[in-house]
Amino acid sequence: MGNQTKVAMIGAGSWGTALALVLADNGHTVHLWGKNEQDIEEINKNHINKRYLPEIKLSENIIGFTSMQEALQDVHFIVMSVPTKAMREVMQQMIPYLDEPKTFIHVSKGIEPGTLLRISEIMEEEIPEQLLKSIVVLSGPSHAEEVSLRHLTTVTVSSKNMEEAEKVQDLFINSKFRVYTNPDIVGVEIGGALKNIIAVCAGITDGLGFGDNAKAALITRGLAEMARLGTKMGANPLTFSGLTGIGDLIVTCTSVHSRNWRAGNLLGKGCPLEEVLENMGMVVEGIRTTKAGHQLSVKYGIEMPITNALYDVLFNGKNARDVVEGLMTRDKTHEMEDLVNILASQYTE
Amino acid sequence: MGNQTKVAMIGAGSWGTALALVLADNGHTVHLWGKNEQDIEEINKNHINKRYLPEIKLSENIIGFTSMQEALQDVHFIVMSVPTKAMREVMQQMIPYLDEPKTFIHVSKGIEPGTLLRISEIMEEEIPEQLLKSIVVLSGPSHAEEVSLRHLTTVTVSSKNMEEAEKVQDLFINSKFRVYTNPDIVGVEIGGALKNIIAVCAGITDGLGFGDNAKAALITRGLAEMARLGTKMGANPLTFSGLTGIGDLIVTCTSVHSRNWRAGNLLGKGCPLEEVLENMGMVVEGIRTTKAGHQLSVKYGIEMPITNALYDVLFNGKNARDVVEGLMTRDKTHEMEDLVNILASQYTE
Repeated sequence: MGNQTKVAMIGAGSWGTALALVLADNGHTVHLWGKNEQDIEEINKNHINKRYLPEIKLSENIIGFTSMQEALQDVHFIVMSVPTKAMREVMQQMIPYLDEPKTFIHVSKGIEPGTLLRISEIMEEEIPEQLLKSIVVLSGPSHAEEVSLRHLTTVTVSSKNMEEAEKVQDLFINSKFRVYTNPDIVGVEIGGALKNIIAVCAGITDGLGFGDNAKAALITRGLAEMARLGTKMGANPLTFSGLTGIGDLIVTCTSVHSRNWRAGNLLGKGCPLEEVLENMGMVVEGIRTTKAGHQLSVKYGIEMPITNALYDVLFNGKNARDVVEGLMTRDKTHEMEDLVNILASQYTE
Repeated sequence: MGNQTKVAMIGAGSWGTALALVLADNGHTVHLWGKNEQDIEEINKNHINKRYLPEIKLSENIIGFTSMQEALQDVHFIVMSVPTKAMREVMQQMIPYLDEPKTFIHVSKGIEPGTLLRISEIMEEEIPEQLLKSIVVLSGPSHAEEVSLRHLTTVTVSSKNMEEAEKVQDLFINSKFRVYTNPDIVGVEIGGALKNIIAVCAGITDGLGFGDNAKAALITRGLAEMARLGTKMGANPLTFSGLTGIGDLIVTCTSVHSRNWRAGNLLGKGCPLEEVLENMGMVVEGIRTTKAGHQLSVKYGIEMPITNALYDVLFNGKNARDVVEGLMTRDKTHEMEDLVNILASQYTE
């Protein structure tokens, strides 16, 4: 892959911009598409994303666009970095300007409430067959702020087409941004989505002042819950022990950079949901994913006490302290019963 | 179990004292044994453990002793809360004052370098058969400071004799201190010991300023490494996904209360090992366990890159930054290969 590789980065939030930096560091040209005229102008004029990564100087190989047509011109790869909620709308905007099969990379973390589709499945629905080469997901413990500072970061790529995933690995990998492959796309996407639910809950626990012991217990149970559901949905249970499972869960539950944790933290301190969402200024995927997680728990008949507790707090007006205490003091006292449930199936490849 | 239950807590450090508080909260009488005359006098006179938990008022049901004979008088259970290094010596001190089989509980986390024995195995060597009813281990994500403040905490008990483990569960459990059972004593002890190695390394990573993304990757790989070795040693791999595995690993790697993390943090900032150990004022189990972990890696032929990297930093004078960067940028790029290694065997009960 030479210097001529052009990549469209659709979405100029903090994550899209940080990944654009990685690509530019690797010598690629990035078409960074965003909606906001002023933000894009600032990127092209002063090479700064003032709104999302104000302290980072952007490479001149990152060119901002508000025109989708121009952004997609002559690109070899298209990276989708928009919130789950906006995914369909933005894809529909793109389709008219595509004329040959492309590999689409997505770097978002969510599940669509209602349809209960993973992001790659939403994309498969939206992209006409003749325009779709393959879909690759890139996920892992990776705060944008740290990636933009070139702090050592590890992520995983996955796809139904692993040959294409390896091309994406080559595209992004460098000495600071380590890219691994994992053929389990279901597990990679489910882990990335569900960990946001646990992170909101961990934030609540911290906001309530429960302490680190309780939070560690919550994260441990959260992992079991994610693995239980994911395995039922066809994921390899081992994926939940990897970077996109426990790795991403840890960073999202314990880092101050995590917006899902921050939203939960405000909730735990007694701030009403509407106010929290207003204060964040960014999409909090975990809130919407909790709806989807609750629906998945019902659909697959899987016990998901943390997800359903958070659902009760967010959407049924239950008291956060009561709910969290209830979670932690449940009657069950045989840990191994819980753990055995994690491995409903075993990796056989 | 009524109010008459008497428990000897051997070791008056922060963890022994916090657990004495749990037992006292449950209405039991605790004989808290410590070496330091002044500390024990302070506990009996002012009901304060000035050195280790200076801000917590102790119950009058906690009685301090420096005489081992008196501490062991008429007790129903004996809890060993001393560093791994001191375990044999303290047990040898106890034996002359024991006259009937007792259940010994241990709450320490380590492996003995040289013999490579787990703590319960050391105890089996030291306690004459006719004095040993059973050995129960209590372990999990549980900073003493938080337990002493009655923050919600979850731990696991395990034993070869699960009936006795359930008695210990009854002894300690209350609404704030949740006790679970797990029959896999090998996994529970190995997880508790090895996580301190990863915590020292996480502290180094933080001390070097690598950030949360890198730390999450390190913890993820650390868990895989712990599970790989533990499984080879006879543990159930699932135990590493539970409270005494990932739960304890998280709390030890991310909490400011963690002395192993703090020791690593100082090392990462360039402080020499001797100075770090002097500054800590408490035993840093992770340093000694790294020696044992390195020996275990050789004995069982298990790849343990983090343990061996830390061994090189601690005992071979290697540069911490070089070693950590080397760890993170190894050539291997197929995550699933690593993960599959975790499950060398499967839980079959």
